[in-house]
Amino acid sequence: MERTSFADWNCSVARALEQMGDWWTLLIIREAMFGTRRFSTFQRRLGISRNILSRRLEKMVRDGLLERAADPDDQRGVIYELSPKGKALFPVLLALMQWGDAHAADGPPPMVVTRRDDAVPLPPIEVRDADGARVPLHAATVRAGPGADPATRARLEKLNAENGAALSKAPASKRSAGDGA
Amino acid sequence: MERTSFADWNCSVARALEQMGDWWTLLIIREAMFGTRRFSTFQRRLGISRNILSRRLEKMVRDGLLERAADPDDQRGVIYELSPKGKALFPVLLALMQWGDAHAADGPPPMVVTRRDDAVPLPPIEVRDADGARVPLHAATVRAGPGADPATRARLEKLNAENGAALSKAPASKRSAGDGA
Repeated sequence: MERTSFADWNCSVARALEQMGDWWTLLIIREAMFGTRRFSTFQRRLGISRNILSRRLEKMVRDGLLERAADPDDQRGVIYELSPKGKALFPVLLALMQWGDAHAADGPPPMVVTRRDDAVPLPPIEVRDADGARVPLHAATVRAGPGADPATRARLEKLNAENGAALSKAPASKRSAGDGA
Repeated sequence: MERTSFADWNCSVARALEQMGDWWTLLIIREAMFGTRRFSTFQRRLGISRNILSRRLEKMVRDGLLERAADPDDQRGVIYELSPKGKALFPVLLALMQWGDAHAADGPPPMVVTRRDDAVPLPPIEVRDADGARVPLHAATVRAGPGADPATRARLEKLNAENGAALSKAPASKRSAGDGA
């Protein structure tokens, strides 16, 4: 499978994906959130080859997603811990898990993320505005940010002209309400 | 690059990633949110080969992420539109974009997602409980859901025993406050 570099795209989604490398990165982050810190445990849990895991962990340390530290139980060993940047992927992982539960599952959810103290499940992650109101796709748009290059600006002007700037058509029954899926 | 199937993992993150196939899927979803509906436009915007794009769109229609319809401007042509399942990836994409802005950028954000009506930027997506309070990683945990298999149950019991169930250590300065990053 050919691999395209997204690093130079003028888009933070593409740049984020570039740092992910491949899906293993998110699954390793998930494992780290489950408390896995040692190479052998990652390997066993993920069923990944030593070679791939080794390269993947190297890249994740280099990209600042994981931090390497001395193993407190084995002076010659190392452990891998989530950095703040790695921890910041929590909303991405939870949104992906919830989407998987709702749309890619063949049964009820295998796992439920809850508050730690009282086991109350966390509700679905939703896109909300600063007032806390839910923002459906058709009520949102994308505008040029301070880092937009000329191509991105031209692109977004076209979106605005063609679609009235909405990211999707409003559902027919709710087109005037400004709410709904 | 070898490709492992995650479809049979007892985990909705893995199953979600399985449906993604590779990063192109999320970039195609992003394009569709920008109003792209035709094969030639996807190809030009993404700089992707006809062959890969064709296979990817087929799979996305099969998986129910996109819906194929007759092109209103060309009876012989087809367009690809986001299905409700595809639109439901909005929180995943926005969380990924915001993470990219904060952690994978080499400058200010190229694009800003805003409310359509008044251009007010949407705040960062955060993990919140049902009361609307932010839930940092160390105040969350994962419990077995109704679809957990025995291995998943054993796994989560171990997490509970070893880490006091938290998904990360609390920051040292805030260990008693139950809040913070």
